[in-house]
Amino acid sequence: MEIKVLTNVLKANDNIARDNNTDFTTNQVLAINLMSSPGSGKTTLLENTITLLQADFRIGVIEGDLQTTIDAERIQKLNIPVVQINTAGGCHLDANLVRNAVKNLALNEIDLLFIENVGNLVCPAEYQLGEHKRVVLLSIAEGDDKPIKYPAVFRNADVLIITKMDLLPNSDFELARARQDATQINPAIEIFEISCKTGRGLTAWCDWLRQQVKC
Amino acid sequence: MEIKVLTNVLKANDNIARDNNTDFTTNQVLAINLMSSPGSGKTTLLENTITLLQADFRIGVIEGDLQTTIDAERIQKLNIPVVQINTAGGCHLDANLVRNAVKNLALNEIDLLFIENVGNLVCPAEYQLGEHKRVVLLSIAEGDDKPIKYPAVFRNADVLIITKMDLLPNSDFELARARQDATQINPAIEIFEISCKTGRGLTAWCDWLRQQVKC
Repeated sequence: MEIKVLTNVLKANDNIARDNNTDFTTNQVLAINLMSSPGSGKTTLLENTITLLQADFRIGVIEGDLQTTIDAERIQKLNIPVVQINTAGGCHLDANLVRNAVKNLALNEIDLLFIENVGNLVCPAEYQLGEHKRVVLLSIAEGDDKPIKYPAVFRNADVLIITKMDLLPNSDFELARARQDATQINPAIEIFEISCKTGRGLTAWCDWLRQQVKC
Repeated sequence: MEIKVLTNVLKANDNIARDNNTDFTTNQVLAINLMSSPGSGKTTLLENTITLLQADFRIGVIEGDLQTTIDAERIQKLNIPVVQINTAGGCHLDANLVRNAVKNLALNEIDLLFIENVGNLVCPAEYQLGEHKRVVLLSIAEGDDKPIKYPAVFRNADVLIITKMDLLPNSDFELARARQDATQINPAIEIFEISCKTGRGLTAWCDWLRQQVKC
C-alpha cells in the first residue's frame, strides 16, 4: 500500500488554476479575482459595476463566502448568472472550488467573470484561481497603513481600488501614504479611487474593465 | 527512524494554550484576545483603553502582525511593556507564538494583558491562545451583515465591540440587525458600542474590564 502525501498544496492549486485559466481564455472570458478585508465593499462595487456594464457585456459572478448566500442574492437581483461557493468556514477560495463552481456557468455566454473572494486580506493572496486580473479593495475606514501591513495581497494585485472615498473628509486616512506604500510594494499596480455612494471614480474603473475585455 | 505526524494541529495548539492559561492565571494576569478584520480599530481601542486604565492597572500588550512593528510602536509610546509577534505572513496568532512572546514579559508585573491578533475575521477564531476572554471588534464601516457571514469568531467571543460609532449617522448599518444576529449566534455575548473619536462607550468598556480584573 502506498500513501501519497501532497507536499505542495500550492503547487497542486496552481495546476488547477492553470486549467481554469485555459478554460476562461478559450471561451474568451475575462476573469477577475476580487479580494479585500470583510466589509471593504466588494459586493457593492460589483452591483455598481454590473449596472454600468451589463448593457455592453455578458457578465457572470462567482460569490465566495464562508456560509450564507447573502451576497449571491444581492447579485442575482441584477438578473445575471451567479454561483455561490460556500467554503464551510474556509478562509479563501482555491482553484478547485472555482473549477467546480464554473461547471454551473455557461462560459461561452460570458464576457466578464467576477470572482468575489472570501473577505480576508491575508489568505486569498496565496491562492491563484485561474484569473486574468487580480483586484484588491481597501476602504478609507480601514486605514492607510494596510498596504505596508498586509503586503502580499497588494504585491500580487493588478489593481488597487480605494473604496468609500466619501469617508475621506472626516478621516485621518492619508491618500498619499497609501498610494506610495502600495506603489513601492508593487510599482505596476493601477489605483482607482471610488465611492459607490457618490459615484466618484466608477467611470474610470469601468473604462479600465472595458479595455481589458477588448484585449 | 520514526516520523511522527501531527494529525491534530488544533489539539496541539490547545495543549500549549492550556499551559499559557495556567501561567497567566498563576501570575494573576487577565489575558484578553482581541480579534477583528484589518482596520476595525483594535490598536486605536487599545491606545484609548490603556490611557484610561494605566493609572489603576499594570498593562502589557502582545502585538500580532504579518510583518512591521507599526502597531507595537504606537503602543510603546504609552510606556507600557509591548512585545511584537511577526507571523511572517501567517494569518493568525497561535498558542506557541504567544508562549514565546510571553517569555519577554514579566508576568508577575502585569495585571492585564492584551493580545492583539492579526487582522482577520476568519482564521484567528480557531486558535485558542490561553486567553481568559475573547473580544471581537466590528466597525460600522464593515456592515451589519458580518456576524451572520463570519459566525465562528462571534460564536466564540465573550464581547462584541461595535467600533467607529461616529460613522453610524451616514451609514446604512442597522445596529438592531447586527446586535440581533450576534446574539442569535451567541446569546451570552456582551455588546459595547464605541467611538474612539468621540469617546462614546469607552467608560462602559473599561468598567467591564475593571470587573474582570477583579474576578
